[in-house]
Amino acid sequence: MECVFGIDIGGTNIKIGKFHGDEMAESRQVKTDKGAAGANIIADVARAVREMQGDDVIAGIGVGVPGPVMDGVVLGAQNLGWKELNVIKEFEKYFPGVVIRVLNDANAAAVGEWAYGGGAGFSSFIFMTLGTGIGGGLIINNELVEGASGSTGEIGHIRVGYHNDRLCTCGLYDCIEQYASATGIVITANRLRVGRETILNEVEVTSKNVFDYAQLGDEVCLEVVNNMVEKLASALAAITNTVNPEAIVLGGGVSKAGQFLLDRVEKRFRELAFFSVRDTKFALAKMGNAAGMYGCAYEVRKKICRLRSTADR
Amino acid sequence: MECVFGIDIGGTNIKIGKFHGDEMAESRQVKTDKGAAGANIIADVARAVREMQGDDVIAGIGVGVPGPVMDGVVLGAQNLGWKELNVIKEFEKYFPGVVIRVLNDANAAAVGEWAYGGGAGFSSFIFMTLGTGIGGGLIINNELVEGASGSTGEIGHIRVGYHNDRLCTCGLYDCIEQYASATGIVITANRLRVGRETILNEVEVTSKNVFDYAQLGDEVCLEVVNNMVEKLASALAAITNTVNPEAIVLGGGVSKAGQFLLDRVEKRFRELAFFSVRDTKFALAKMGNAAGMYGCAYEVRKKICRLRSTADR
Repeated sequence: MECVFGIDIGGTNIKIGKFHGDEMAESRQVKTDKGAAGANIIADVARAVREMQGDDVIAGIGVGVPGPVMDGVVLGAQNLGWKELNVIKEFEKYFPGVVIRVLNDANAAAVGEWAYGGGAGFSSFIFMTLGTGIGGGLIINNELVEGASGSTGEIGHIRVGYHNDRLCTCGLYDCIEQYASATGIVITANRLRVGRETILNEVEVTSKNVFDYAQLGDEVCLEVVNNMVEKLASALAAITNTVNPEAIVLGGGVSKAGQFLLDRVEKRFRELAFFSVRDTKFALAKMGNAAGMYGCAYEVRKKICRLRSTADR
Repeated sequence: MECVFGIDIGGTNIKIGKFHGDEMAESRQVKTDKGAAGANIIADVARAVREMQGDDVIAGIGVGVPGPVMDGVVLGAQNLGWKELNVIKEFEKYFPGVVIRVLNDANAAAVGEWAYGGGAGFSSFIFMTLGTGIGGGLIINNELVEGASGSTGEIGHIRVGYHNDRLCTCGLYDCIEQYASATGIVITANRLRVGRETILNEVEVTSKNVFDYAQLGDEVCLEVVNNMVEKLASALAAITNTVNPEAIVLGGGVSKAGQFLLDRVEKRFRELAFFSVRDTKFALAKMGNAAGMYGCAYEVRKKICRLRSTADR
């Protein structure tokens, strides 16, 4: 049987899914070997893929990587130890003749959500993952927009402050990532809890605890959430004023705060966005950690279709 | 001979161009009659078009209006006194059987710049007009992106401050329009000149004077320019991090400051944008006030082509 693989290479784990058509037949997770500047990663993936292949014929492999991608070349993926790397060529060494599609991991997740998850039915939307960091992807006219240098959706680095208050991992100050990611929420919480009566002085300060105790009425936790919502809604307004998508889909670990978070972000967004984009819809991602695998599989199937329809002419 | 019209309806003047193919054969400017909630505008335009028609056959009319547009319906154009209005229907009353295309004026200018001006050769770019206000348009894959509610490119309302310092005409605070438009530059200049030794206390405080005297070394004028550049570069970084276009094209009256402005914006942008979008190209608009007419004519010709190719099937 013909199959494709959808592979999501992350800084901690690599998720590998084997697909028959739209259906994931099997999946596996392997540790990311960050040693030797990530030199073993692709060999590890190739071994797992061969083991999972069974009697199937591999038509294509879609790969998501945590960095900007241009024509199959990752411009750099710090979390893997990779500098510029032609990922298509590397995979072709192990899988000659197989169609390879490489895309940014957040873009892959956006496609997964569009095809099967929280973005289904929208012809245009912004996908934003709120995790340890913040990433995103942009779908317009039912197509992923990858950008002139593979960097569409680097929305974690929108500036939301003008006082050089929080240094971001990217080297800039006051990126939204430093306020609305799990990391950012912890920074705010650690500042606001000092000398205050709050559960945050008794439990571990995590994004999850902040949201859990905010819902139970802890005043400081609520303040932390409001602070995060203010910055997030401002960034989403900037994005929406620029591209006017049908919807905003929020994913990532922080979005597990669910409707409690969504309601607050949506309310403040409607106050901060330009009048004619205030009706932008909001939705939560549904595919969780599998979004990337599904998106990679979807995109490589599309590439195969296009190549075959061109070959038929 | 077959002709199309490209018409740019502004709050002060209406610019009407008659085109044979790509060439503007004739143009005319009429005052915008804002009386009676703009009820006479379309009749005035129709009269001028008939006068300019001569022996030509009108195949199409492209119309740019200062407001969000969805499927030919303007959702509201404050500067004209218009509430929601189906502009296609209104024009069809005067020109039955003629193809009508209605688009936002900044979007029309973006298309004009893309097809004939500063955006020529770029498959994707953000166009930003810095005038009394700030507008914009987005081209991706050589196509204008109009958005889910006709509001793509409302980039004048990106938030660049968090202290509710400057109230914008849109009702929000601290929109980039209040800092980087001609209006915003005057606000900053009037604040910074107080009690200082500067030419701004002797000449009229205008955006043009600020730039002219900044180039001659007036310290306060340079400070005003730097303040404007900081906010503008931040907004452009947010936009570019989101859509990763090939280029940014700056137009509008303020952009007449030319290379002096462009060099400063570009330099600060390269410091503030995410690393992988820092090579975004910068260009100045070239079409001036004619961009909208050219863009409207281009878009209606495209609509005619599509309708005819569908009819041929």
